[in-house]
Amino acid sequence: MPMHKPYRLAVKAAILDAEGRCLLIRRSTHCRHYVGQWEWPGGKADKGEEFTEALAREAREETSLEIEITGLVGAAHFEMPAVHVILLCMEARSVGGEVALSEEHDQFAWAPLSDLASWDLTEQVRPLMLDYARSRRTTR
Amino acid sequence: MPMHKPYRLAVKAAILDAEGRCLLIRRSTHCRHYVGQWEWPGGKADKGEEFTEALAREAREETSLEIEITGLVGAAHFEMPAVHVILLCMEARSVGGEVALSEEHDQFAWAPLSDLASWDLTEQVRPLMLDYARSRRTTR
Repeated sequence: MPMHKPYRLAVKAAILDAEGRCLLIRRSTHCRHYVGQWEWPGGKADKGEEFTEALAREAREETSLEIEITGLVGAAHFEMPAVHVILLCMEARSVGGEVALSEEHDQFAWAPLSDLASWDLTEQVRPLMLDYARSRRTTR
Repeated sequence: MPMHKPYRLAVKAAILDAEGRCLLIRRSTHCRHYVGQWEWPGGKADKGEEFTEALAREAREETSLEIEITGLVGAAHFEMPAVHVILLCMEARSVGGEVALSEEHDQFAWAPLSDLASWDLTEQVRPLMLDYARSRRTTR
C-alpha cells in the first residue's frame, strides 16, 4: 500500500449548452500524456484555492469561458506516480465569452451526451463521463 | 434557479476498522438538526483548507482519531438555505487514538457495512452511504 502518497484535489466541468451538449476539448502535442484524447476542461486545484475558484480559473484558462456551476457530476479517484488524485466533476454552463483554447488543447466540440461513448475520451475520466451521460439522459 | 447561492465543500470519512466495519456517530441535542441520527464524522472545509486537512481536523475534533485516507467513497450534492453543499466522502482508517466524542455527538458504534441500511442515518448522506456499502461488499 502506498502509505504516504498524498491526496490532491482536481476539478473538471461538464459545461452544457442550451441543447444539453457538453464542451469537449482535445489534448494537444503540448501535453505530456493522452495527446489527441478528448476531455472536459479542468485541472488541479492550487494550494489554498476553493474548488469553485479552481474550476472557474481552469475553465477560463483552457476555454476563455466564464462559467456558473449548476450541479454535481460526481467524483473519481486515480493514481499518479507521486500522488492520488481525487477528481471532483461539476456540471456548469457558460455565462460569458466565446470558446478560445490555450496551447494545451487544439480542438473543441459540443458533443451530445448520447454520443459521448463514441469519442476517444481520456481513460481515467471516461467511466465517470459515461455514467453521467447515461444518468442525465434517463432522469431529466 | 438559485442563481447566486454559492457552492461549499464539505467532507466526511468512512473510517473502517480491520473487520471492515465503519464508525458511526450519533448527533446529540447540541446539534440544531437531525438530532439522534447517525452519520460519518466530517464537516465543512474552512476557507483555504485542503480537503485532506479538513477531513483530518474534523475526524480529530469529532472522534479524537488520527486518520489516514485510503480511497474515495463518492460525492453528493444537497441544498441548504444559504448554500449548495458538495460533500466529498473518503474512505479512511484510524492510525492513532481512541474514540472520544465532542459534545456534538453522544454515542458511537462500529457498524458492519452489511447492516448500514438498518440504521437511522442522516437522510442527505444516506443514499451515498448505502451505495458505498453495496459496492464495497460486491467488488472487494
